[in-house]
Amino acid sequence: MSLLFRGAELDGSARDILVEGDKIVAVGEELAGPLGQLTEIIDCLGLAAFPTLVNAHAHSAMTLFRGAAEDLELEAWLKSVIWPLEAKLTAEDIYWGTRLAALDMISTGTGLCQDMYSDPLATARAARNSGMRFVIDYALIDGMDEDKAAAQRRACKAFFDNLPDFGPNVSFNLAAHSVYATCPSSLRWLGEFGRERDLSLHIHLAETKFEIDSCKKHTGMSPVFYLDSLGFLGPDVFAAHALWLDAADFDLLAERGVKLVHNPASNMKLASGPAFDYGAAKRRGIVTLLGTDGSASNNGLDLFADMKLAALLQKHEYHDPTRFPLTELVASATVLGHEAFGDGAGCLEPGKAADFLLVDLSAPGMIPRRGLAANLVYAGGGGAVDTMVCAGKIIMRHRKIDGAEEVRAEAARLSARLAAAR
Amino acid sequence: MSLLFRGAELDGSARDILVEGDKIVAVGEELAGPLGQLTEIIDCLGLAAFPTLVNAHAHSAMTLFRGAAEDLELEAWLKSVIWPLEAKLTAEDIYWGTRLAALDMISTGTGLCQDMYSDPLATARAARNSGMRFVIDYALIDGMDEDKAAAQRRACKAFFDNLPDFGPNVSFNLAAHSVYATCPSSLRWLGEFGRERDLSLHIHLAETKFEIDSCKKHTGMSPVFYLDSLGFLGPDVFAAHALWLDAADFDLLAERGVKLVHNPASNMKLASGPAFDYGAAKRRGIVTLLGTDGSASNNGLDLFADMKLAALLQKHEYHDPTRFPLTELVASATVLGHEAFGDGAGCLEPGKAADFLLVDLSAPGMIPRRGLAANLVYAGGGGAVDTMVCAGKIIMRHRKIDGAEEVRAEAARLSARLAAAR
Repeated sequence: MSLLFRGAELDGSARDILVEGDKIVAVGEELAGPLGQLTEIIDCLGLAAFPTLVNAHAHSAMTLFRGAAEDLELEAWLKSVIWPLEAKLTAEDIYWGTRLAALDMISTGTGLCQDMYSDPLATARAARNSGMRFVIDYALIDGMDEDKAAAQRRACKAFFDNLPDFGPNVSFNLAAHSVYATCPSSLRWLGEFGRERDLSLHIHLAETKFEIDSCKKHTGMSPVFYLDSLGFLGPDVFAAHALWLDAADFDLLAERGVKLVHNPASNMKLASGPAFDYGAAKRRGIVTLLGTDGSASNNGLDLFADMKLAALLQKHEYHDPTRFPLTELVASATVLGHEAFGDGAGCLEPGKAADFLLVDLSAPGMIPRRGLAANLVYAGGGGAVDTMVCAGKIIMRHRKIDGAEEVRAEAARLSARLAAAR
Repeated sequence: MSLLFRGAELDGSARDILVEGDKIVAVGEELAGPLGQLTEIIDCLGLAAFPTLVNAHAHSAMTLFRGAAEDLELEAWLKSVIWPLEAKLTAEDIYWGTRLAALDMISTGTGLCQDMYSDPLATARAARNSGMRFVIDYALIDGMDEDKAAAQRRACKAFFDNLPDFGPNVSFNLAAHSVYATCPSSLRWLGEFGRERDLSLHIHLAETKFEIDSCKKHTGMSPVFYLDSLGFLGPDVFAAHALWLDAADFDLLAERGVKLVHNPASNMKLASGPAFDYGAAKRRGIVTLLGTDGSASNNGLDLFADMKLAALLQKHEYHDPTRFPLTELVASATVLGHEAFGDGAGCLEPGKAADFLLVDLSAPGMIPRRGLAANLVYAGGGGAVDTMVCAGKIIMRHRKIDGAEEVRAEAARLSARLAAAR
């Protein structure tokens, strides 16, 4: 069965897009499906094609905590709300919380998410059933307890020795929570094990001043230099937040080829520190991706909204309306992300993975059409996403997602149960 | 004909809302319509009621320029893009540009807009036909040409002497563009004429450093003190932007009862200056409202998105996650705005104007339901607006707005004509 998307706007012209299996096989005018095969024709009049977005840092299951804590200091937010809730989470909660996150992400244009949370198997079941792509962390967080750390490393190795198969859209990688919550023995081991197994690494880095101060106090080094001293850093590392960095930190990150993930909504909402310095990364050729972070500190998962926020924050903070221009912003949320995670998507060209959105050009903010990307980013593209194709499958069609009602009902039920159990 | 909204969620419970004429006459359980009158019953299962939003500073017709200029310095933005486009605008452009803005605003929850632009009659025709509430400025902008200023004052007086009637949802007030584009003779006259006719005043104030520097150079005073020396300031003044203010400016604004309108998206996108100081306003009891500004510098008109941005900017800039908390943010965009413009709306109570939204509780970001306002503001409420009631009339029903297709087609046509005429 092939899919022929008829007459979608692409780079300003009406184009047909032919999909076979999980690939785009042709883009052009008046295409026909392959001879002798069933081809479904999807009329795309009034729809524009755009790559799916990549959310490079999320804690998906935290959708269940959405709206649980507003306007709180970080310490109160963590200690009085988030940690007590997390202590009660079951695999069922994580499954349905992740399904809800996927529903929100698909509805607003995200087709791939890198997820760090506490139960990779529950997350992976949800990911497989969502239809979108997930890169799921096996994350080590030990509270600096060496016994716990050693046990986690053994469990982690056993997990990857018997890696379960959740289908082609779900892959696993490694994570350390942070330099302050993961023992140095595990940080060193993750670098070694990751490279041995060709697994990328994910970590929260330089998110708060507390992290910098305590790392310097305990190690005499900044978190960046400390991680490097443990052999952690490399081109396979995704470092989320990256707010409290100096020039030497940026230089070393560039030298090691680390990719940064900027989370503007979460950083601003929690008042985590200075603005991420996109210019410092760009000058050094460091790749910047974008993330939503979890729903307790954002609280949406609409990455188009966070693209706008990222651009506005750079322009405001650095007094420069030309900073983080549209083409770079779109690259950060699309092609650079797809390249970093190696899913073969990011461009709508023959041979590429068939991952794209069809955007309703009559939605609020989409008229007039002086520039599709400007409208999507600056005028509310998340609400304009009509259809999503992910790895060759239509996982949302005219805003309908299979199973959405059950996901909403279960997530609402479990969130209420968590609230009652506090 | 009465309207009975059956079982909408309101403050956490299912409530019926009975509307007669332009008023809410009852809110409660199991209400019935008045005897002997036709009553339409609207099933609100799965919908929550929320006040309409107030966009207190917009240039609606600039929707036609949406996406025309991204990532430019202010001077290039104005001189190479915006002013040449504005020089070509016709009344037809302004009519359809304003209709498009109204479409976008209604779709995302805004029920009242204060609009400053160049053709109040074209704007008013569009406002009347949109169904939402508009407060339309008769704006004086003379480029500091005294002859032009005198002619404008005569025309302005003639306009209000023979005030056209555009129905109950459309009212007019006065505006000066700014201290640098409106002669002091007109600034003084506006204060006098406004108070004589009981018309409020609207002005751009302290938006850029250029404005402050040039005002000090020419008058020896800050824009706030200069306006006060001309008798302009009072509780009937809406001052938009208000970025470059010192403590003495804030004190004087508080003493005069001036209301401020914060436009976070525009200010950040154009890198206009420091963040608006909400805390300085709040400590002095100054009312802060919210605005989107025009679509060339935002580019959306979704005020829920800008509520989030306003809160995030305060928290980030002032390193305080408790700043501009949810209740104050909601008040700024709803009840304080409705009070300031005197339309009798802002609360869903008997006797109040029937202006409210019905929000789809299954939309992305609206689950779980730990807090409706948190979800609406922080998780994308604009996309969840299902139905809008404005002055007792249903002007959007299940996201359908009468005449929307014609508005989109005309706005697209005219925007393309403008682009071609450059």
